[in-house]
Amino acid sequence: METSEDLTQLTPVALRHLIRSGNFSGQTSGLAAGYTQANLVILPKDLAYDFLLFTQRNPRPCPVLEVSDTGSRKLHQMATDIDLANDFPKYWIYRHGQLDEEVTSVESFWRPDFVSFLIGCSFSFESELIAAGIEVRNITEKVNVPMYNTTIPLQSAGPFHGNMVVSMRPIPEDQVIKAVQVTAAMPKVHGAPIQIGNPAHIGIHDLAHPDYGDPVTIKDGELPVFWPCGVTPQNVIMQVKPDFVITHAPGHMLVTDVKNTSLKYA
Amino acid sequence: METSEDLTQLTPVALRHLIRSGNFSGQTSGLAAGYTQANLVILPKDLAYDFLLFTQRNPRPCPVLEVSDTGSRKLHQMATDIDLANDFPKYWIYRHGQLDEEVTSVESFWRPDFVSFLIGCSFSFESELIAAGIEVRNITEKVNVPMYNTTIPLQSAGPFHGNMVVSMRPIPEDQVIKAVQVTAAMPKVHGAPIQIGNPAHIGIHDLAHPDYGDPVTIKDGELPVFWPCGVTPQNVIMQVKPDFVITHAPGHMLVTDVKNTSLKYA
Repeated sequence: METSEDLTQLTPVALRHLIRSGNFSGQTSGLAAGYTQANLVILPKDLAYDFLLFTQRNPRPCPVLEVSDTGSRKLHQMATDIDLANDFPKYWIYRHGQLDEEVTSVESFWRPDFVSFLIGCSFSFESELIAAGIEVRNITEKVNVPMYNTTIPLQSAGPFHGNMVVSMRPIPEDQVIKAVQVTAAMPKVHGAPIQIGNPAHIGIHDLAHPDYGDPVTIKDGELPVFWPCGVTPQNVIMQVKPDFVITHAPGHMLVTDVKNTSLKYA
Repeated sequence: METSEDLTQLTPVALRHLIRSGNFSGQTSGLAAGYTQANLVILPKDLAYDFLLFTQRNPRPCPVLEVSDTGSRKLHQMATDIDLANDFPKYWIYRHGQLDEEVTSVESFWRPDFVSFLIGCSFSFESELIAAGIEVRNITEKVNVPMYNTTIPLQSAGPFHGNMVVSMRPIPEDQVIKAVQVTAAMPKVHGAPIQIGNPAHIGIHDLAHPDYGDPVTIKDGELPVFWPCGVTPQNVIMQVKPDFVITHAPGHMLVTDVKNTSLKYA
């Protein structure tokens, strides 16, 4: 077994091999620095059209990096030498909209009608914020980013509907403009903020009690800045209570061969 | 009947009313200045998933502005007070991949399994180029933009596959950078160029004989600049020879309620 110090030196493909062989099932935060990590949703084909349409209509919270061919465990663009059924460290299996099982492989569950959606993750823009000299509080405080339900309505598609979930990072007033510029250049990982400084305007009334994740310190002279969040699509799917859905376990992402910098611009 | 001078003064909704009532069936170029015009592809639902996936995998040549609900003749985002079966001045009907009929309404052909795809059009970025002081040669010479088949492969999806079609505009060398900047800011209407100055590199060997549209003059000191072109999706669809497809007739677009300027950035 490798030590976690060794792990950070691994290339994406070496890391996927280690995960695939069952020798690593931890969180991927901080691994393969500079490479894009991706969220996962696997749906049966009969829901895939409406969900793909939902992502097309709501690209800010649901930025699709790639959709697999039906039944395939491979990808065309984000990674070669990939097995979608084994290359995430941990998977969550939902039955009828309820979390039912956590597993390190979904090979034994695989069906020919599965479609895998890889969705952009804020890990990518957080590293760009840090590179621009902007502190990311949830990283400094070593907690999960705070996330909130909002009153921002989404465009429905078939059975999929609901409001946007946002993540929040406190930013010093004099760095807010830079934070907008940095993230706006990365539309494939949520892009620019959706709200700055006025949580009540989007239905958030208590920053200290996020709906998901952990609270973070907001210092004097900082504004809460809100970005569309990748929890949104999972939230919307679970409301439909599909018979069978697979997602990654939070923090246990796919490490792709694509660099964050190549996600810049559309 | 209005004169064409009156027409240019009409709002998008007034223009759609005029078209819907059967009182205008001409080209929409130059009408409702500043408002986005859209290409149309109507497919039966059984092809819609693979086509939507194809556009997701190939957003540069296939920038989707909106997809209708199945069977619906309405839109949610690009226009209110809209009838997709009557608000284009002219439609083309393809049967088994062959152009079969030109009509001014498709109401009598409408089916509950129709899905309408509205696709971004270079009209939008041409007006922005002109606003930036860059001449658009095909507009100056009052001809259709020259378009070429290339060797640039597209990502396949189900039965849909092929190479990219590009449009070409000659740009003075000292304005090429500006042309990149202006169009890169509009990813919903093809975005930045895909090639500058080296047509042979993408399989184009005779600029004087475009595969679609008309040739334009290239002056000394100008470079041919190539953009992904909205003819690509139609081309790819027709190769599949679907039983029944409806498109707009070239130049006879939908005039939407959305301003070109709001298509800037992702």
